[in-house]
Amino acid sequence: MSRDYGQVCPMALSLEIVGERWTLLIVRDLLRAPRKFQDLIESLGAPPGLLSRRLKWLEERGIVERRMYSEHPPRAEYVLTASGGELRDVVRALTIWGSKHLPGERVLVHTRCEHPIEVAYRCARCDETLPPSDIAYRMESTAKTPTPAITMIRRSTSRTAVRRRKGAARKATA
Amino acid sequence: MSRDYGQVCPMALSLEIVGERWTLLIVRDLLRAPRKFQDLIESLGAPPGLLSRRLKWLEERGIVERRMYSEHPPRAEYVLTASGGELRDVVRALTIWGSKHLPGERVLVHTRCEHPIEVAYRCARCDETLPPSDIAYRMESTAKTPTPAITMIRRSTSRTAVRRRKGAARKATA
Repeated sequence: MSRDYGQVCPMALSLEIVGERWTLLIVRDLLRAPRKFQDLIESLGAPPGLLSRRLKWLEERGIVERRMYSEHPPRAEYVLTASGGELRDVVRALTIWGSKHLPGERVLVHTRCEHPIEVAYRCARCDETLPPSDIAYRMESTAKTPTPAITMIRRSTSRTAVRRRKGAARKATA
Repeated sequence: MSRDYGQVCPMALSLEIVGERWTLLIVRDLLRAPRKFQDLIESLGAPPGLLSRRLKWLEERGIVERRMYSEHPPRAEYVLTASGGELRDVVRALTIWGSKHLPGERVLVHTRCEHPIEVAYRCARCDETLPPSDIAYRMESTAKTPTPAITMIRRSTSRTAVRRRKGAARKATA
């Protein structure tokens, strides 16, 4: 099944990168610390072939880096890049929702009062937390600095895919 | 492929509910407004059989409700439940990450200054926004009110799955 949803919605594009089975669990484990391939197999319980494909995919898109931590013998570990590390908010949003609505046994809390935390939204420019009425979608006019993830997508974007994305522009809301 | 990751991590449990292909795109569309089945087919471009299975799955887990909006002729639409509506934070976290790192054309902004917003974390009890150092995981000791999603999971939880979940307890972090 194709990963491409044919939409310009940034959420759909994010899911094209991290929406496949096991991918966000790999990210979750790497958010704690760099991991060797064998450690990931053991902590996740995912099939090695699948894990290898997911790591390669994430590496090609600039989410994960493979780093040598020993030359003799050669030993590598996986580590999140800066953009990969920013997936922490996705992992936490899923965690907070799951803690509230599903029978999991862990919860993210405020360390001082031990009360479960909530997601909020903030404007860094104005340095304030925003009420829902102050949040809206805009079409983007400024060019972004290309990252590996962007480069990979652009390289693989056929004219048909571009047409599909443009056609889906009006649907791209959340 | 099984949806079950065999973990007690609330993020993994959330992905068992909303991690399949198209599911979060359905949620995204329903966050805007209730939708008829045909509207969802048109806005998403998903195959009708798949969309039907996803909606049934979400309905059984208390994320979506099917609501009659006309008796003669009988016409139904899909609407998010309260817990389904709280997936807005997951959709937004994916949107904000995608807007920043991928070539999408939409961005969530602060309406007053038009600057892209960021995810933050808040303690409702203390009424304050939290720095990263004030957020941590805890094992949960209080029982939660069962929701349809919980009931479904409990019903389908075999002894083996429980053992797997208990065994995975130490891995369940994010």
